[in-house]
Amino acid sequence: MTDMTNMTDTAATETTIRQKRYDRGLEVLKRINGESVIELADSLREISPELGYQTVAWAYGDSYSRPALSPRDRQLITLGMLTSQGGEETELRAHIPLALAVGLTPDEIVETFLHAAVYCGFPRAINATQTARKVFAERGVSVSAAAATPVPVDVPVRSARSTPSQ
Amino acid sequence: MTDMTNMTDTAATETTIRQKRYDRGLEVLKRINGESVIELADSLREISPELGYQTVAWAYGDSYSRPALSPRDRQLITLGMLTSQGGEETELRAHIPLALAVGLTPDEIVETFLHAAVYCGFPRAINATQTARKVFAERGVSVSAAAATPVPVDVPVRSARSTPSQ
Amino acid sequence: MTDMTNMTDTAATETTIRQKRYDRGLEVLKRINGESVIELADSLREISPELGYQTVAWAYGDSYSRPALSPRDRQLITLGMLTSQGGEETELRAHIPLALAVGLTPDEIVETFLHAAVYCGFPRAINATQTARKVFAERGVSVSAAAATPVPVDVPVRSARSTPSQ
Amino acid sequence: MTDMTNMTDTAATETTIRQKRYDRGLEVLKRINGESVIELADSLREISPELGYQTVAWAYGDSYSRPALSPRDRQLITLGMLTSQGGEETELRAHIPLALAVGLTPDEIVETFLHAAVYCGFPRAINATQTARKVFAERGVSVSAAAATPVPVDVPVRSARSTPSQ
Amino acid sequence: MTDMTNMTDTAATETTIRQKRYDRGLEVLKRINGESVIELADSLREISPELGYQTVAWAYGDSYSRPALSPRDRQLITLGMLTSQGGEETELRAHIPLALAVGLTPDEIVETFLHAAVYCGFPRAINATQTARKVFAERGVSVSAAAATPVPVDVPVRSARSTPSQ
Amino acid sequence: MTDMTNMTDTAATETTIRQKRYDRGLEVLKRINGESVIELADSLREISPELGYQTVAWAYGDSYSRPALSPRDRQLITLGMLTSQGGEETELRAHIPLALAVGLTPDEIVETFLHAAVYCGFPRAINATQTARKVFAERGVSVSAAAATPVPVDVPVRSARSTPSQ
Repeated sequence: MTDMTNMTDTAATETTIRQKRYDRGLEVLKRINGESVIELADSLREISPELGYQTVAWAYGDSYSRPALSPRDRQLITLGMLTSQGGEETELRAHIPLALAVGLTPDEIVETFLHAAVYCGFPRAINATQTARKVFAERGVSVSAAAATPVPVDVPVRSARSTPSQ
Repeated sequence: MTDMTNMTDTAATETTIRQKRYDRGLEVLKRINGESVIELADSLREISPELGYQTVAWAYGDSYSRPALSPRDRQLITLGMLTSQGGEETELRAHIPLALAVGLTPDEIVETFLHAAVYCGFPRAINATQTARKVFAERGVSVSAAAATPVPVDVPVRSARSTPSQ
Repeated sequence: MTDMTNMTDTAATETTIRQKRYDRGLEVLKRINGESVIELADSLREISPELGYQTVAWAYGDSYSRPALSPRDRQLITLGMLTSQGGEETELRAHIPLALAVGLTPDEIVETFLHAAVYCGFPRAINATQTARKVFAERGVSVSAAAATPVPVDVPVRSARSTPSQ
Repeated sequence: MTDMTNMTDTAATETTIRQKRYDRGLEVLKRINGESVIELADSLREISPELGYQTVAWAYGDSYSRPALSPRDRQLITLGMLTSQGGEETELRAHIPLALAVGLTPDEIVETFLHAAVYCGFPRAINATQTARKVFAERGVSVSAAAATPVPVDVPVRSARSTPSQ
Repeated sequence: MTDMTNMTDTAATETTIRQKRYDRGLEVLKRINGESVIELADSLREISPELGYQTVAWAYGDSYSRPALSPRDRQLITLGMLTSQGGEETELRAHIPLALAVGLTPDEIVETFLHAAVYCGFPRAINATQTARKVFAERGVSVSAAAATPVPVDVPVRSARSTPSQ
Repeated sequence: MTDMTNMTDTAATETTIRQKRYDRGLEVLKRINGESVIELADSLREISPELGYQTVAWAYGDSYSRPALSPRDRQLITLGMLTSQGGEETELRAHIPLALAVGLTPDEIVETFLHAAVYCGFPRAINATQTARKVFAERGVSVSAAAATPVPVDVPVRSARSTPSQ
């Protein structure tokens, strides 16, 4: 933490608030087993300390902690975006574990990428799915057999709208 | 519907299944007040009938109807992707109403775009938010006052992780 | 054309070659009824003369004129890219007429966007298709009824690989 | 294949049609030596069986098999899109061999990426070209000396519009 | 400004710091005649107050105000990015005036888009240039005749590296 | 160089001008220690000689050499674009050294990616920053301690607008 000995009152106050935002971001990340994101931010410490600070304090401390969306909701949005944006395997490798940690099941994560194929095409959906495969293998996680079953055309839509995991 | 009078049994069967997939897509869309998506697909009827068919039968009949993710989950993913991809105001104008219809609140929709700013930057998050503003105005919908309140640094993270709308 | 009265021999020679590359680009564009592209380049004359020059001289004079790919081949590539890149309706409005001029049929152009949906997703494929609809309507062009027919599963693949327009 | 013993007639019929679409996709891929695409789809079998199914049944069985565009035309579109979208080296490594298999020459493939540079810029065109270099080396394929020759300014455009490979 | 009457000391302090960051962002924007950006942020006030706050407080108060890059440097980076990202005409319309305000000349702005064509291709470079044309016309600004002159091949590179506007 | 023995005068002249444009590009690159770009272009020699030629002759000979923007200005634009476009680590690895060579400091390069985070989001800004870390480590270059210091809210904006490196 910054040495505040010689600062003015305002500067010391601002430093305190700045630190508190960072601490809140860390707290959010620790509660959701977001160590991979903490590591990612820490790895920036030598090269771009401000970017590392903002990743924790702004993206998690100020934004992710807001109650309007739950962490589970946020991970759904993020997985869709990282898939669509392409070339973000590093971030997917951090956010797939986060997704599991906040309550998305392996089936739901893989279904997210299948859903994404409609909006960003197959190449990126396939790439994200392959990244999930590796992450799941590393963590001893797997999808269920149910994931392999399509919905027959005669099954009423009402069944299709059930939400088994909530 | 296609005239099946002179078809072989297999061709007639396939046409039936094809029609059933389309019907299921329509049914999903009608249940979630997705008339704007039905309209979008219909507007393709003269120019690209197969693309219009696939939008309803594949994207909704085959994919959206799968139980692994709820419609509310799917709209979170989609809103994130349409924001990130840019230049998809037409689709956002169809999917923001769909999001409201499946149970996302105006606050949650706007929070989705704020969350997105971390992953795709401010220009696209702002553009999506402006589209939401127009759609909400057209439909007499508005965000709550709570949306204007940041989370003070001393509020414990546990409160910040509550999920008021589930 | 630039006044070459006071130039050195080398400068005059270079100006001549520069002009010839531009002339070749114009010639390519005129042969394929690419007036809309000529107009687009001309509209840059006041604001960015070099960009307008490069559009004609480099993109068409140096690149498009090369024999390794025909104009028809080039328009297939370009239509796919403009669809995928999104937000390039201005360029699609110039390249769809070019595609018709070099021998792609309306059916083939619309099929290009349907094919594209696999690789870049439905939003961008739909947006490109809507642009084609407007351009065709303005030019009194339309797709054939055959475009509305899917390929039945029992039709052998060999028929599916015929290439009617070559 | 799914065990259909206990299914209703409709369910068994739908399963049959579903299988037939998949079989048609496989047939298209085998005829064009698309084993790399079959492998890519197969590699999804454990993690996302539905995405693997859709890659073969929808993208190839339903879409690629349609007669309005030949496989050669389709590969031109696809190569342009994969170049533009960036970060899709995996897919380029599958589609460059496909392009060779359907009749595009090495010169035409490399020319496709040169053409693409106009529309998506040099970084992505260069990246795609480097991927082609590796794929060609692995397969003992090379471009011709003609590819090294620019078109002199005095060569009439008519020669420049010849289509030697058709 | 928020009513701080009933807040704890910490909450009041945090609100003060929050307000100061916003004020600093406003001050940066006012000094560089960034009224269009202030307007853009203000237009979010009803729909997404936090996004509007972050645009001013984070993007300008925390980031833009940092001394490591001047505003002129920052506008060069931003113009390149907005061009490349496509579909961000709204933001370009705000940032082109900002660029003029911080000391970039009309020639330099147009040259930025010409330079960009190498990295993101002609469609997006042309679109950005057209936006500049409109903004310049609205503000009675124009490029110089020098912009129309290419650099002859015999002019030594040293002259080409002069930096007339610094 | 091409054997011009049997060419017409015009063909020989054009070849000379073509060579001069290439030579100028090489000269620009050598002056700014752009050997990595020369290498990249050379690596295309066997696979796509025209793309390699255009990289040097058009992108550097015709465009980069123009006086309206300095090389330092150009590198700022390019770094922003390569960050935003994603998946262009190869090009970033060539352009970060170029940026150092033309006078951007390590602090300015890292600040460029921090600035970029506002416009393209954190994933791509982080990826570019990580690439800079590797390049700097390979070259024994590092950022200063000043980069770690945020600007306190009470420091006047005027100080924040100083431009220490010019």
